[in-house]
Amino acid sequence: MTFTQKHLLGIEPLHPMEITAVLDRADQYVDLNRQEQKHADALAGLTQINMFFENSTRTQASFELAGKRLGADVMNMAMQASSIKKGETLIDTALTLNAMHPDLLVVRHPHSGAVDLLAQKVNCAVLNAGDGKHEHPTQALLDALTIRRAKGRLHRLNIAICGDIAHSRVARSNLILLGKMENRVRLVGPPTLMPSQIDQFGVEVYHDMEEGLKDVDVVMMLRLQKERMDGGFIPSEREYYHRYGLDAAKLAHAKDDAIVMHPGPMNRGVEIDGTIADDINRSVIQEQVEMGVAVRMAAMDLLARNLRAARAEARAAQSVEV
Amino acid sequence: MTFTQKHLLGIEPLHPMEITAVLDRADQYVDLNRQEQKHADALAGLTQINMFFENSTRTQASFELAGKRLGADVMNMAMQASSIKKGETLIDTALTLNAMHPDLLVVRHPHSGAVDLLAQKVNCAVLNAGDGKHEHPTQALLDALTIRRAKGRLHRLNIAICGDIAHSRVARSNLILLGKMENRVRLVGPPTLMPSQIDQFGVEVYHDMEEGLKDVDVVMMLRLQKERMDGGFIPSEREYYHRYGLDAAKLAHAKDDAIVMHPGPMNRGVEIDGTIADDINRSVIQEQVEMGVAVRMAAMDLLARNLRAARAEARAAQSVEV
Amino acid sequence: MTFTQKHLLGIEPLHPMEITAVLDRADQYVDLNRQEQKHADALAGLTQINMFFENSTRTQASFELAGKRLGADVMNMAMQASSIKKGETLIDTALTLNAMHPDLLVVRHPHSGAVDLLAQKVNCAVLNAGDGKHEHPTQALLDALTIRRAKGRLHRLNIAICGDIAHSRVARSNLILLGKMENRVRLVGPPTLMPSQIDQFGVEVYHDMEEGLKDVDVVMMLRLQKERMDGGFIPSEREYYHRYGLDAAKLAHAKDDAIVMHPGPMNRGVEIDGTIADDINRSVIQEQVEMGVAVRMAAMDLLARNLRAARAEARAAQSVEV
Repeated sequence: MTFTQKHLLGIEPLHPMEITAVLDRADQYVDLNRQEQKHADALAGLTQINMFFENSTRTQASFELAGKRLGADVMNMAMQASSIKKGETLIDTALTLNAMHPDLLVVRHPHSGAVDLLAQKVNCAVLNAGDGKHEHPTQALLDALTIRRAKGRLHRLNIAICGDIAHSRVARSNLILLGKMENRVRLVGPPTLMPSQIDQFGVEVYHDMEEGLKDVDVVMMLRLQKERMDGGFIPSEREYYHRYGLDAAKLAHAKDDAIVMHPGPMNRGVEIDGTIADDINRSVIQEQVEMGVAVRMAAMDLLARNLRAARAEARAAQSVEV
Repeated sequence: MTFTQKHLLGIEPLHPMEITAVLDRADQYVDLNRQEQKHADALAGLTQINMFFENSTRTQASFELAGKRLGADVMNMAMQASSIKKGETLIDTALTLNAMHPDLLVVRHPHSGAVDLLAQKVNCAVLNAGDGKHEHPTQALLDALTIRRAKGRLHRLNIAICGDIAHSRVARSNLILLGKMENRVRLVGPPTLMPSQIDQFGVEVYHDMEEGLKDVDVVMMLRLQKERMDGGFIPSEREYYHRYGLDAAKLAHAKDDAIVMHPGPMNRGVEIDGTIADDINRSVIQEQVEMGVAVRMAAMDLLARNLRAARAEARAAQSVEV
Repeated sequence: MTFTQKHLLGIEPLHPMEITAVLDRADQYVDLNRQEQKHADALAGLTQINMFFENSTRTQASFELAGKRLGADVMNMAMQASSIKKGETLIDTALTLNAMHPDLLVVRHPHSGAVDLLAQKVNCAVLNAGDGKHEHPTQALLDALTIRRAKGRLHRLNIAICGDIAHSRVARSNLILLGKMENRVRLVGPPTLMPSQIDQFGVEVYHDMEEGLKDVDVVMMLRLQKERMDGGFIPSEREYYHRYGLDAAKLAHAKDDAIVMHPGPMNRGVEIDGTIADDINRSVIQEQVEMGVAVRMAAMDLLARNLRAARAEARAAQSVEV
């Protein structure tokens, strides 16, 4: 078994072979999802709980469909309306859910590190669906799968991640993944929207879109996340679009066959021109969504296998002791 | 195959034989729903997504149960709390969902025509669960099934639709359906609550309940939809009940075996007297709810069959090209 | 068949043998839930509707998982956002749902008696998931199962129920159940948080924790329900913790092997010290959650059996008449 993780908390802990293992499995689920009968039984009899402490209709929907298509019993917990209001701690909430014997726990939380903390307290597989500015591993994996299918490979590509890097866990997880797979990644955006410890990633930084997009294979646009900009600099949308929004003129500097990506939901006319977003020769934005369901099916399938193996081992060890 | 639609966007596009086909199939599902084991597998392995941009507990529940009883994987999207808040357009939302490969998309939207627009952008079957003041086809179909079962036929009946016609897509879809099936329909209500282009339907209009109900077979009451009356005339509830609320005295003008209908939720003491609503010899209001689940099962079953046939044809055409 | 109830509206109507029957069945489901494959088909083909007129993430989750693991089609109704806002009465809502042919209806409502009223209007099995200050029978049953498994028996135990008794349907249902099973129950708490008609239960009342916990086998702490204290006395949390919060010093007066319970969600540092809540040698708080799913599976299983038997009988009676 190549994929040996107990949880999927981030891209950081993954070996490149593990990333490849998830993508290979996901390719099979892409095929399944295009069938009429979209059912497999990889998670039959298992319980999946989605705990979203932050709203995210599309990510939650993607995980929910992934689980249902694999036969799991899927339960969504509306955590805003929950016990948290009554003063319960995150750990108590986790322990409570854990006592209900879930097998897979999908968690989104506004605080970086909250999902890791939670994973230490439960005895099921935990998937990070986004924690603060930290990681969003399934997004990076679905982006990787989209690139691999469009470009035929996932290494030695020139990839520009553009826009609001500072507030983006998507950028962070992608940076780590694309680096592990030996691609050349550039960050493009205004200095005010670059992360503070940028040197740790060993990437090139551009503040000019035309320079930054020169000869790249992949243009990855990010959402301008005004809702996360507390206090600091908030650019005007018009000015931002003028300098950093992806339009035909700027895209012309990339390679002729460069693909355009966006994690959604898009602000058309802010970080991306609507015409480019809809151009099926350049944009793979819908493919990203499609790959999202497949990647989540793959990740949950592989984690469930490891969970079963670990439990079988624990039972065997116990019976030897006796 | 009699029913040849790709979507169920309204009653307008349906041939009378298609209406009959849905009702015949629904009759079978009424029987199934009265069994202990309420499961069939007409939608097994398919994905149904309910996108409600307007709250409607009862209609959403009816579609949800219909899908689950036919074996579909059903997902509800709470669209108020969704990406729309983040500035995503309806079309982007539709394309995103479409990329997740749903087979059936059930949509309610506050704007007339929004569901039609959306149906053009996706490659699955779309069901209109109510769009603005336009159509609400499954409501008209369930009303038709209720009438057909109570009266033994769905033609040459005298039917009065009473109350707030102007704000009612229920009235509009019913008018079209009952006209297609060759019934005599009358509209009864205050002039201020009549639609502006009333002549197009070729129906009789009454402003007096006693005259309007004279010798009818079916009295169809509507909900007074104060929440949709923006600016204009809002009647006092007491005055409204006095003149247009259905009570025993007014109902006495209808035929002795006339049935009383209401799409719910009812305002008791506003548009209808509670005693009449509860009179099991006259009121078929609970039957309407029961027929609702069956009609939605039938509609989704028939649409799924057409979807499968269209896909099979597309595959065959593709293999010939190769 | 020992368990002869049509509904589970409270502990009050249950015979001690019926309580034992639920707990015995629940023991089996505890085993199932600890398996990898957590599926049984006791409710296959049946429809379960959860109607929560009051938010309760954990109780609703417990019922939802219970139903899904037994194969039911489970539907959650968000009743706050529902027709009730449009002026529909509780009874109309109940009749509407009933017309959709549910088999099991799980109801939580802020008003005492609302669930009993509703049960009279529908022809399916109704489970009370908490109604006002009246009853919360599945909580009392899961507490009973937890005690029976920890202590090896459910009779002749000394049990202290401590804290905010006045606002607690949990306390009320537990008092009734533990009394029926012939335990000695004491209430411990400030006079202001004692119910007004306390004499009817024939229990000892203590206003001092050390005296009240003396030599008890079970310490059952309650949540301080500030949200239900309208107008009257609201204690300061600090003062409350000092006098009535469970800490090591107070617990030392109980038996050495006394267990500590709490229905959750906990206010750590208000009614209970966090260290004690986490002490796996004393606290059975996580076990309570685990037993909750099993008890709900057992209750729904037994009610579904009775429902099937009643329906079969009705069919037989009908065919004799013919």
